Amino acid sequence: MTTAPWRDPALPASARVDDLLSRMTLQEKTAQLYGVWVGAATDGEGVAPLQREMSADYDWDELITHGLGQLTRSFGTAPVDPALGAQALARAQRRIAAAGRFGIPAVAHEECLAGFTTWRATAYPVPLAWGASFDPPLVEDMARRIGADLRSVGVHQGLAPVLDVVRDPRWGRVEETIGEDPYLTGTIGTAYVRGLESTGVIATLKHFAGYASSAGARNLAPVRAGVREFADVTLPPFEMALREGGARSVMAAYTETDGVPASADPRLLTELLREQWGFTGTVVADYFGIAFLRSLHRVAGTDAEAAHAALAAGIDVELPTLKCYGKPLVDAVRAGEVPEELVDLAARRVLLQKCELGLLDEDWDPEPAERIDLDSTAGRTLARRLAEESVVLLDNPDGLLPLAQDTRIAVVGPRAADALAMLGCYSFPSHVLTHHPDVPMGIDIPTVLEALRAELPDAKVTFAEGCGVSDPDETGFEEAVARAAEADVCLAVLGDRAGLFGRGTSGEGCDVSDLRLPGVQGELLDALVATGVPVVLVLLTGRPYALGRWQGRLGAVVQAFFPGEEGGPAVAGVLSGRVNPSGRLPVSVPREPGGQPWTYLQPPLGLAGEVSNLDPTPLYAFGHGRSYTSFAWESDAADAEIGTDGSYEMAVTVRNTGDRAGAEVVQLYLHDPVASVTRPDVRLIAYQRLELEPGESRRVAFRFHADLSSFTDRSNLKVVEPGLLELRLGTSSAEVLHTARLTLSGPVRVLGPDRRLVCEAVVS
Amino acid sequence: MTTAPWRDPALPASARVDDLLSRMTLQEKTAQLYGVWVGAATDGEGVAPLQREMSADYDWDELITHGLGQLTRSFGTAPVDPALGAQALARAQRRIAAAGRFGIPAVAHEECLAGFTTWRATAYPVPLAWGASFDPPLVEDMARRIGADLRSVGVHQGLAPVLDVVRDPRWGRVEETIGEDPYLTGTIGTAYVRGLESTGVIATLKHFAGYASSAGARNLAPVRAGVREFADVTLPPFEMALREGGARSVMAAYTETDGVPASADPRLLTELLREQWGFTGTVVADYFGIAFLRSLHRVAGTDAEAAHAALAAGIDVELPTLKCYGKPLVDAVRAGEVPEELVDLAARRVLLQKCELGLLDEDWDPEPAERIDLDSTAGRTLARRLAEESVVLLDNPDGLLPLAQDTRIAVVGPRAADALAMLGCYSFPSHVLTHHPDVPMGIDIPTVLEALRAELPDAKVTFAEGCGVSDPDETGFEEAVARAAEADVCLAVLGDRAGLFGRGTSGEGCDVSDLRLPGVQGELLDALVATGVPVVLVLLTGRPYALGRWQGRLGAVVQAFFPGEEGGPAVAGVLSGRVNPSGRLPVSVPREPGGQPWTYLQPPLGLAGEVSNLDPTPLYAFGHGRSYTSFAWESDAADAEIGTDGSYEMAVTVRNTGDRAGAEVVQLYLHDPVASVTRPDVRLIAYQRLELEPGESRRVAFRFHADLSSFTDRSNLKVVEPGLLELRLGTSSAEVLHTARLTLSGPVRVLGPDRRLVCEAVVS
Repeated sequence: MTTAPWRDPALPASARVDDLLSRMTLQEKTAQLYGVWVGAATDGEGVAPLQREMSADYDWDELITHGLGQLTRSFGTAPVDPALGAQALARAQRRIAAAGRFGIPAVAHEECLAGFTTWRATAYPVPLAWGASFDPPLVEDMARRIGADLRSVGVHQGLAPVLDVVRDPRWGRVEETIGEDPYLTGTIGTAYVRGLESTGVIATLKHFAGYASSAGARNLAPVRAGVREFADVTLPPFEMALREGGARSVMAAYTETDGVPASADPRLLTELLREQWGFTGTVVADYFGIAFLRSLHRVAGTDAEAAHAALAAGIDVELPTLKCYGKPLVDAVRAGEVPEELVDLAARRVLLQKCELGLLDEDWDPEPAERIDLDSTAGRTLARRLAEESVVLLDNPDGLLPLAQDTRIAVVGPRAADALAMLGCYSFPSHVLTHHPDVPMGIDIPTVLEALRAELPDAKVTFAEGCGVSDPDETGFEEAVARAAEADVCLAVLGDRAGLFGRGTSGEGCDVSDLRLPGVQGELLDALVATGVPVVLVLLTGRPYALGRWQGRLGAVVQAFFPGEEGGPAVAGVLSGRVNPSGRLPVSVPREPGGQPWTYLQPPLGLAGEVSNLDPTPLYAFGHGRSYTSFAWESDAADAEIGTDGSYEMAVTVRNTGDRAGAEVVQLYLHDPVASVTRPDVRLIAYQRLELEPGESRRVAFRFHADLSSFTDRSNLKVVEPGLLELRLGTSSAEVLHTARLTLSGPVRVLGPDRRLVCEAVVS
Repeated sequence: MTTAPWRDPALPASARVDDLLSRMTLQEKTAQLYGVWVGAATDGEGVAPLQREMSADYDWDELITHGLGQLTRSFGTAPVDPALGAQALARAQRRIAAAGRFGIPAVAHEECLAGFTTWRATAYPVPLAWGASFDPPLVEDMARRIGADLRSVGVHQGLAPVLDVVRDPRWGRVEETIGEDPYLTGTIGTAYVRGLESTGVIATLKHFAGYASSAGARNLAPVRAGVREFADVTLPPFEMALREGGARSVMAAYTETDGVPASADPRLLTELLREQWGFTGTVVADYFGIAFLRSLHRVAGTDAEAAHAALAAGIDVELPTLKCYGKPLVDAVRAGEVPEELVDLAARRVLLQKCELGLLDEDWDPEPAERIDLDSTAGRTLARRLAEESVVLLDNPDGLLPLAQDTRIAVVGPRAADALAMLGCYSFPSHVLTHHPDVPMGIDIPTVLEALRAELPDAKVTFAEGCGVSDPDETGFEEAVARAAEADVCLAVLGDRAGLFGRGTSGEGCDVSDLRLPGVQGELLDALVATGVPVVLVLLTGRPYALGRWQGRLGAVVQAFFPGEEGGPAVAGVLSGRVNPSGRLPVSVPREPGGQPWTYLQPPLGLAGEVSNLDPTPLYAFGHGRSYTSFAWESDAADAEIGTDGSYEMAVTVRNTGDRAGAEVVQLYLHDPVASVTRPDVRLIAYQRLELEPGESRRVAFRFHADLSSFTDRSNLKVVEPGLLELRLGTSSAEVLHTARLTLSGPVRVLGPDRRLVCEAVVS
């Protein structure tokens, strides 16, 4: 018996796939173009993909006779012991392989945003906290650990990272983003991609593109952005994560921008992504997104039309259903309404990826290890370090922090003693376990209260909840105020409860109409401040909230975004001083609850105060964060002239002038005084985190290339224009320490997709 | 002595202007391209344009030696008696004519939005109230009266109407708009233009274009709109007012859209406006807008570059200064940096308009009449009628209104006894007199309290202010609650104070961060409702406010936008029943204060409730309004098939089935179930106000042409697509009474600028 060419690992992947495709029926090819959400057994014992909670409208055995493109979240839907789940997945894969003519298993994909979204897996800090760390190498390490964990249970593809750039902090999914700056999002997101891809797991960039800009910040609401905002703010993180990170999959967004749904946009998914950027991986639909072309966007009248529009736009895989790419697509191809070539094109991409993954090889073997630990010491260590680096000390005017050991501390607030306060919406306990109230959390998550008591054993720590996260009941205020009045300092631990669609105050579908603290937490804070006891506000939130009301009235302000399972000790460590805070804001903190949307990427008009009675400036600027030590900066920044294709190197030497170790984040912003279109007053173009022992100095040299000043002009070209630029080195977007004024000479340069995206930074 | 050709009225204007231009120096030509804000004497006696309050940086006598394009608001800056002001303007014009070589006077322009913005002139309802009237013929009559008044004092050009379509009700200038629908704005705006232009006064469409869409609703903030939103929502009213109304001037907006400032956008001001739409009039800058290209947009590095950018884009006249088009432009032309042809092109347009106005004729004579009455009986009658038609009865669940004659009425609220409560920001008393506290109002403006006492002489009317408009003092609540408790009904007269930049809660620069009632007025309303006495909420506002908090708790709700000098009697008439309310909402009234922006023009995603915990639907829908009588509708609406170039006629017969005269507004909405880009769920495409005596019937036939279904497709073409359409006849955007389902057959049609913009409506 001879081996068919498609089975021959010695042949190039494209030859193997050509051969395979030529042997497949239309139904076999389309079967590669969808995933099925099979659900998992809820007893923790059952075979995962054989329960059909979400997909009861088809017969599983019949379905898989043609093959199956993807298996959706067999770990992510209900609590399953990792080892049992891995065995169940392997059994299901064998069954899929056995059912079809070619023996090809499915690509198994899972959510893995802040860690693998499954039971008993490490819950890392949310992406907004990664942004606050300004530490791509650490994020890469985390993602490598996540990838290894996914791989250990047989998962091939992770639906992360989220590269949406925050455009309105009221949106519920802000916690899932890396913040409001495209460069920070792109560099941190790229690090995540590198880490995940280094393990062989496919990273999936989402949501491509525009999803964060919904009008009124309502989830899925239409986006008003124009082409320049789209090109210069929305797209750069994706371009960076593809080119610098090597991501192999992209998820089309639910959103529509200026009337065009992303999932039916060939300019976005084919012309830009594949033809201009050269992407060769797969484009997957967001869950049910193709059917939404009919039901929610109404650019298609039938499921077949939706399939046609999505396939023609460039979506290769429907997830997690075959509602459109199943029978409607097959029938439409047979009726001559959809060219079979479109099916072939998508099937080729899916099969090439399966070939890369080894899923076309005869020696493919899904058998997992017998013992699997998804919350290993290595994972917890990374989770702790990232949590510690992500806590932002916003204010500490009188040095109230760190707390003394022998202090009387009143801990107050609904987030102090709840382990779930540490987690974002896509961590398994918030995402899924809220549906399974009797199932234990599966991982150890110390609360802030517990961690603080451990951290400060000699302190007298009392606790009162004060109020709930979002309910209006104020009866607990009295006790909370009493506890505060007896103490030397009051810690108000406030914030969000993350959850899906109405189960939280932050998370997917949990949008807010303004940026007041949830529920009556603001009123609780008022009551605590009124006691006269110094109040340290500790925020565990998924978005920035308006703090102008308490400006100048708080002893200190600590902003921790959902810091993950090790977040309690991380926050307590900052409070005790064991950890020197080094996080920097990845989002602006506004003064007032209303007046949104606003982020720091404003052209002058967006900052002008005199033309409106609304002050747009933030209370704490993007990039802001304090330390318990002090730093001195020296720089060789100078005025210079370079060509429009030139580069300029400037260095800054930072010395830790205090008496304790700490980290400074050097930030480089570009100010373009005059351009042919309006430009942000400043935007981040480089940064470097520097860890410094007391007295230690380190130097970082940035090599700024003119490409980094490029923007999209009126002809929709990326150009570098001659003229003056200012490179501003600072500790935040608002605090400049050194400036280099560069004169760019020469002609306007039009840049292609090979232009430099990242500023080199060399630390010595 | 022979007459120069340019003086010869027998020659065509273009020949005259050719000749004149050929005789002019560069300085003389550029002098035609700016206006100067000369201010007016504040004693009411002085010669208006000779005080230089705003323009102290140049010498007037030297300035006018080269001529002068425009004279800015000699009436609008300080209180001047109309007859004295007219004489002063005439003297100034003679002086300008005498100073230059050619004897050409300036075009005198004034603000005239809700009436001539000058002392002792009729203060009409604001445009938002015109929108509520759904009565273009009445608005045309008003504008004709305004035009005649302007003309009587020597003014040539009025800086109105505002055709910005509301995109975010938090914006301070919402009161100046005709609401959130382009068709309503376009048709009412066109009526205004017709009225003004019929008197020979130049109407100026503003602000071209996009100004209402500023991010966060902050005045002048950048606009994020894409090309389709711009083409299908922002531009249509302008196109309509040019083509159907014949406006002769357009003002460039301050705004920037997607990075491109309108004032430096040749695609907008030249390619679209002149080349596609065929506009031949003048484009004027918004005040200081050209200099803003340097200071606020930073697309120009110098005033000369700003001048170049604006001139090249297509702005003919700088207002109200020569900061850029004066010496900087002259020097730049002399230095060869700006082609003189650009100056010639603009000067030609200005001079052609002056020629049309008779300002190049030797018999030009500026002498005004000796007696001038700008607040005539005719004006007041129009102001009254429009005010009456604009009051919207939002709710009257138990028939509490109209009030009985012998009722005990507690009138409460900061807007009940203040004449300024009736006026918008561009009415002279709010616009200017706030700077002149000792100058009397100049016109008689009955308050709601005064008018109600006159209207209901037998009622026992008490009054308590309760609180101020915006200050936080609640000490007046007690008395207000006491008055309410003693009464049969409480009228809570709440709302805005209009003013400029921080002087008001509504008006230019008076943007709000959310839609809570200003100050503590919401809390006052809470306190009044808590008395148990039925409360009638009467709103005198410049924007919609969130009323969801009081849903089901009010006896009745009356929404009057600033109704002008006769607004007090109009509102009192509605309360007493003398006037049967017939206004309809030109803006949606939201439930919640946050969650903006939102208007009714939403594609399905903007209405989807299940994907976010924020409910986007309004409390009262666009087009909603109640009457004291009832109407029965009959229609011949039926299913039909027409071509993509076809038309369909449907009629509705409305009968007044109650026992009192009243007006119904028949509204026709288009629902497009499937299109190649996402479309609003419904949008207004026709309407007709019908006045009906008890028992009377009238029929309105709408001839819907397929052109009216057109929209901007992905190639930026206006197209009519085949497929199903629904024409929905209803009493609001949310209440449908009859539907015709039309199937459009045939090819996709691409439409040009000659496409039908207005739906024919024939009343019989």
